[in-house]
This record gives sequence, structure tokens and C-alpha cells, in this order.
Amino acid sequence: MKELYDKILKEGKICPGDIVKVDSFLNHQVDVNFMERVGAEFYNLFKDSGINKIVSIETSGVIVAMEVAKLFDCRLVFAKKGKPLNQDNSFYESKVMSYTRHAEVEIRLAKEYLTKDDKVLVIDDFLANGSAINGLLDIINQSGATLIGCGVVIEKGFQPGGKALREKGIRLESLAIIDEIDVNKQTIKFRK
Amino acid sequence: MKELYDKILKEGKICPGDIVKVDSFLNHQVDVNFMERVGAEFYNLFKDSGINKIVSIETSGVIVAMEVAKLFDCRLVFAKKGKPLNQDNSFYESKVMSYTRHAEVEIRLAKEYLTKDDKVLVIDDFLANGSAINGLLDIINQSGATLIGCGVVIEKGFQPGGKALREKGIRLESLAIIDEIDVNKQTIKFRK
Repeated sequence: MKELYDKILKEGKICPGDIVKVDSFLNHQVDVNFMERVGAEFYNLFKDSGINKIVSIETSGVIVAMEVAKLFDCRLVFAKKGKPLNQDNSFYESKVMSYTRHAEVEIRLAKEYLTKDDKVLVIDDFLANGSAINGLLDIINQSGATLIGCGVVIEKGFQPGGKALREKGIRLESLAIIDEIDVNKQTIKFRK
Repeated sequence: MKELYDKILKEGKICPGDIVKVDSFLNHQVDVNFMERVGAEFYNLFKDSGINKIVSIETSGVIVAMEVAKLFDCRLVFAKKGKPLNQDNSFYESKVMSYTRHAEVEIRLAKEYLTKDDKVLVIDDFLANGSAINGLLDIINQSGATLIGCGVVIEKGFQPGGKALREKGIRLESLAIIDEIDVNKQTIKFRK
């Protein structure tokens, strides 16, 4: 997505540890009009797949997923992080690594909002090692729902998450794949 | 908002501890089309106030705030919860009580995304004791931005947050105010 490349190059902050911060339009401040166009990209990629539910994970994934759900005219359900106060068997549960918290966190999704009749598109903002998406796939698998595919805004192509998903035969669409980040030169290389 | 009353009565789950769960359309599963209409209500209430920034807090507040920001054609910035990994002086910080975590959590908002030139509408999903909104107001105060008002989807009128804000002269608009929850009778009374 050309506009996304331009925005990453113009507004992204390259930080040590192969980090590109896109806090100005996606993860902290949100450019809501741009998010509509991001949503439309995913809709165009998956529109003929019979999707009736969008699954995401808090927080930034939800920002993108909202726009996608609107175009598919379906419900969005997002996995919540952290242990619920009232533990019962009404949730699917999994675990993901939180890179911002440097720790494993539990995620959960209420069983009543995801069933075997659902055809699911998973949406998230970033894909690096794939921990968040794999947690969501675990939950979708528990539910018996059909996974149609995954859409992420920015994939870090030099980390293994995307490759592993594609090797499993999962349809993964990334609007931008970053293959190289050079913090000294302050450059980013996108996959063509 | 009549449609909101109806949705709370039809889909809300009344739980012990004066809790109304609206997980089916707002806090976990999201009815994205309904959220557009919620956003439009806030826009109509505040449209002549010169608002140029929407401030909210993760996670569910952001869902509502997205729609509001779109109608105001302005940026949304949301406070993040939890301690940042790299503590520096580039953030406004405050503290809020998290009722889901039963603990005080730090919140932060990057200084570059909120300045004294901003005219701010605060948006959140729930208002009970007002801890989250007061944390946001603290941050807005630190920034020097002008607070135009606050909009919340559901106010628990029997808890003190809303009253305290109004007594301070803050314009607070709640789309539904619940004055009574009876878990035994499974009834909800709205303020007229």
C-alpha cells in the first residue's frame, strides 16, 4: 500500500532494537481517515471469502479491525489481555508474548462470540514473531470457526512470524513488509 | 439515546456488584454500525465547539472515540496504560484505578500529540467513579490544552464520578445514565 509506505517513511521513528514506531498515526495518535483506507485495502483483498466475523486483539489491532468490520458489515470481537477476575469456562484462552510488557500474558475471548459457524478474518497492526496472531489462531481453533486469513498492517519480514504462517498454508496479507531496518543510517527497506 | 437504552435492556447482562456488562456490542464484541451512530450523537452534541482533538484511553474508549474523531475530521490520541519500558520526559503521566485489574495503573500520553493549542473532547465508554476521566483531565491540564467537554456512552448515575465532574463546571454528556441496577429483579432504571 503506497500511502502506507510513504507514511512509515515520513512519520515512522526508527529506534534501536529493530523498532519502527508509528505512534503518530496508528499506535497512540490515530489518523482515523487513513485507517478507513487501510480497512478498505483489507476488504478488497478478502471481500469474496464469505467472512462474517473479524477477530482482533486489544489495543491497536482493534483500531484497524473496526474499519474492516464496518466494510464487511459484520461484528468484530477482540481478545482481551490479562487474567479475568471471574475465572469460569465461558472463555477460550491462550497465551501471547507481550513485547511492550516483556512478559507472557493470558488472552481470552468469550465463547458466545465465536462459534463453529463463523468464517473469520484476523486483523492486527503488527506482525513480528507472530505471538499475538498465533494466540488468536489457537482460540479460533478451539472455537471450531473457519479461519479465512490474516491481515496485518505492518509485517517485519526479517522476523519469523509471517514466514511461519505462510508455510502453514495460512493466507496472510500484509500491507507493508519491512525487510530491513538500519538504525544508524535511519533507513527502512520494504519488500517489493 | 433511545437505541442505546434498548440495547442495554436487551443485551446488557446485570451482574452482582452493580455491574452491567455490554460485552455483546461495546466492550468485547463490537457492533460497529451502532458505534457509528453513537459517534454521531457525540458529534451533534459538541459540533459547534471548535474541537480539534479527541482524547481517550485504551481499550473500549478508543472504539467509541474512533467514530467521533472521524466526524470531527481530527486526530484521536489515546492514553496508554502501564509503565513504558523507556521512561523519559516525553510523556504526560497520571494514575487511574483499574476496576478490572483491581489496582492503580499508570497512564501516559506523548507530549507531542497534545499541546496548548488543542481543543479537546474526552471520550470514554463508561463513567462510574470517574477515575479514568480524571486521569485524562490531569493529563490535559498538564498539556495546557483546552478542555471542551467529556462524552461517555454509559454513566452509572449512582456512583459519584459524573456528579463531581458537573459540579466542577465541566460539560459532561452521557448518552445513557443508569440510576439503579437491581440484580435480583434484573432491572435497570435510566435517568430521564
